[in-house]
Amino acid sequence: MSRPNAKAVCLLSGGLDSATCLALARLAGALGAAAHRLAKSDLRIFGPAALPDDIAVPKGRGETEMGEGIPVTYVPARNTIFLSFALAWAEVLEAGDIFIGVNALDYSGYPDCRPEFVEAFEKMSNLATMTGVEGITRMNIHTPLIRLSKAEIVQLGADLGVPFGLTHSCYDPDAVGRPCGECDSCLLRAKGFREAGLIDEALRAPNAHL
Amino acid sequence: MSRPNAKAVCLLSGGLDSATCLALARLAGALGAAAHRLAKSDLRIFGPAALPDDIAVPKGRGETEMGEGIPVTYVPARNTIFLSFALAWAEVLEAGDIFIGVNALDYSGYPDCRPEFVEAFEKMSNLATMTGVEGITRMNIHTPLIRLSKAEIVQLGADLGVPFGLTHSCYDPDAVGRPCGECDSCLLRAKGFREAGLIDEALRAPNAHL
Repeated sequence: MSRPNAKAVCLLSGGLDSATCLALARLAGALGAAAHRLAKSDLRIFGPAALPDDIAVPKGRGETEMGEGIPVTYVPARNTIFLSFALAWAEVLEAGDIFIGVNALDYSGYPDCRPEFVEAFEKMSNLATMTGVEGITRMNIHTPLIRLSKAEIVQLGADLGVPFGLTHSCYDPDAVGRPCGECDSCLLRAKGFREAGLIDEALRAPNAHL
Repeated sequence: MSRPNAKAVCLLSGGLDSATCLALARLAGALGAAAHRLAKSDLRIFGPAALPDDIAVPKGRGETEMGEGIPVTYVPARNTIFLSFALAWAEVLEAGDIFIGVNALDYSGYPDCRPEFVEAFEKMSNLATMTGVEGITRMNIHTPLIRLSKAEIVQLGADLGVPFGLTHSCYDPDAVGRPCGECDSCLLRAKGFREAGLIDEALRAPNAHL
């Protein structure tokens, strides 16, 4: 970020990656999270293919299976929609920086986690907004985790003091929100903590199933 | 459109331009509107600058004033958000065509009505979705009205049988939805009908104020 005390918008889903990304955005700019907005969008209006809630989430898959093609848990245009809302808020705030915790390595099947998608969104952002017309500031999309492994993200988050016990990564939690432990997301998270040599506090919570 | 019976998604706000755009999309592909989805998004979460409802809408301005800079009625990232939802639905449907009734002439102050924005969104769309990865189809964003004057849009819509009496363009309607007749959008609409030599049926409705 080029300006001192510059504003930035950071997308936060509640998962491990976006929580680490937020911690990084806060520390990099010494900003603090000044405000939080919850944008509600029900993608189920577009039918059962639009949300993993409504499909059978694969369980107990090995890494080779996970790496094949685009996962069924893929949500159409998900990051495009998320970034569009962030762009609206960034423009209102006259913020020039948007952070998103996408990752292209551990979970390479999502088209909207690729660097070339992020670059295209950034370019579009500067044409979509007053930013591009009036030259108030340039809109930059930051993806600090995009090239990190899950173990590196866990280690980075731990170093930054991310409260992993409050984060949630499971694609198929039970009725009270406990992670299934067997979906791709739970398995990748467990592997990340194992390789980083750290304990996942989310599994130590009173309602954890493991 | 390259494929017979191809699916397409058309954005419809309820205004004159998008209604004409829908009529054009339907006739061009002889598709008919097979389904309709209402995507609700409350941009007011981002503060008063995000929606014209909360600002003083300028009244009675001449064309020179309207043409100066970006209108205060500009909604940050509006078309980016609308197109993102259309992109999600298009991907679910495996549709390769999205129609949006943006217009760069009569109302040139909006950055997200410019052809260069639409081109950048189209490019981003093909990187954001499975479309781009698996080559199912290419995503095309169509803007058939982008170079037309309001009078040309009115004439085109009339030729296509658009029920203009059901459309709504006002930025500042009263409590029962009657147009103010004095905001930029009402004035441009009136001028379009006047230049096309046609009567605006929306002003003939029982609740019309004129």
